[in-house]
Amino acid sequence: MHILVTNDDGVAAPGLAALAETLRDLGQVSVVAPDRNWSASGHVKTMHKPLRLEPARTAAGAEALATNGAPSDCVALAVLGVLGSPVDLVVAGINPRANLGHDVTYSGTVTAAMEAAIWGLPAMAVSAVDGEGHGYHDAARVARALVGAIARHGLPPMTVLNVNVPALAADQPAVIAVTTQGLRTYADRLVRREDPSGRAYYWITGDPPSDTPEPGTDADALLAGKVSVTPLGLDLTHRAAAELLRAWRIDVP
Amino acid sequence: MHILVTNDDGVAAPGLAALAETLRDLGQVSVVAPDRNWSASGHVKTMHKPLRLEPARTAAGAEALATNGAPSDCVALAVLGVLGSPVDLVVAGINPRANLGHDVTYSGTVTAAMEAAIWGLPAMAVSAVDGEGHGYHDAARVARALVGAIARHGLPPMTVLNVNVPALAADQPAVIAVTTQGLRTYADRLVRREDPSGRAYYWITGDPPSDTPEPGTDADALLAGKVSVTPLGLDLTHRAAAELLRAWRIDVP
Repeated sequence: MHILVTNDDGVAAPGLAALAETLRDLGQVSVVAPDRNWSASGHVKTMHKPLRLEPARTAAGAEALATNGAPSDCVALAVLGVLGSPVDLVVAGINPRANLGHDVTYSGTVTAAMEAAIWGLPAMAVSAVDGEGHGYHDAARVARALVGAIARHGLPPMTVLNVNVPALAADQPAVIAVTTQGLRTYADRLVRREDPSGRAYYWITGDPPSDTPEPGTDADALLAGKVSVTPLGLDLTHRAAAELLRAWRIDVP
Repeated sequence: MHILVTNDDGVAAPGLAALAETLRDLGQVSVVAPDRNWSASGHVKTMHKPLRLEPARTAAGAEALATNGAPSDCVALAVLGVLGSPVDLVVAGINPRANLGHDVTYSGTVTAAMEAAIWGLPAMAVSAVDGEGHGYHDAARVARALVGAIARHGLPPMTVLNVNVPALAADQPAVIAVTTQGLRTYADRLVRREDPSGRAYYWITGDPPSDTPEPGTDADALLAGKVSVTPLGLDLTHRAAAELLRAWRIDVP
């Protein structure tokens, strides 16, 4: 099994190294990652500028390729052949914060996995709720178990697993909950400043988002100390809304 | 009704001007758009750099604000208060090409609308299959009819309308089909080149994508000469896959 490991925090991030090292038990691991941080970068396909691909090292000293492209570009480059052999599975991470609720549409980690699913590959995005301490080690352990399960069972097409791993007690087994995408509420606000010549500029900032831990959701599982595994699909059609809209009978003058 | 118009092609794009001018029949229109082209930019939240907001003009000479941020940043800036009065509805477009199938996860036009839905606003992304000729005029006409319908009926929360408008015959009324997101297949390939000093670089390029026009999909409606309106939801949970995963019983060693 040839596993591509990528992330959105850049090739030097400790979470990437932890993931790549742990997955080597399961097969050949290749690392292609951005040369800088791309957090909240969304799903990007870079066609307007050339992409560089340079030899690099992970934080664990392992061989990697670094690109000036986005996380989703790393996947496209690998699928389109820069590694010399086909990729069987893509794992993105380990993100140093949870990716919950609507985070999935912003997250470079999740959108790297989406890019892989669009190319027909099984894919997973892995986040540690707390990247400090044992966080990456625990999340990598969970990722290894899930990759093994995907290798045995297969994933349905066009499916991405969004995996969030809480801090786990050293003597406790990890309990996995298959969850739904919850509702994350952002507390963004705008800060207006003026530069030395008096021209305004703005920062989008804010407090950390809050979660509504409805039963069965990603946030609810984390609150209970469980690993949240949310299968995400790439068909975004809102079928209930479609029923409503059909009754509207809109005329276009 | 206060309508925010934005796009991903930049404030000077003709599609943005056509949309803004046509929607003025329905209420107050404000334009906040990127100062450059952000196609295939995905869902971005810019928190790592300050955002500028400068007076600008649309291609029709109307007042606008231009920002160095992404399309989704335009929505966030407006919702967070830079316009001085609250926004009731967001329309992004008019994109000069169709946004079908998986395009919705890459498209800056669609992700601007998603940002609005996350903020609790009704939102629509509008694309003309052919931006030349009458394309923008027809698409703007359709957008106006749909905004009127949303004002009358409301949209369910967390819903975005992805609207694709084909070339319409001048003497024919537009027929609207409520569709599902179809399957678009990309024909990307990699072109490797070397710079004058012999270092490799890569272009992601390829032929235009092809569509599988299954009955009821976006592409099927366009083939039949109809306007495709696909309601997209922001809960990406793949519930059928969740059922499968629950049967896996994964141990984490």
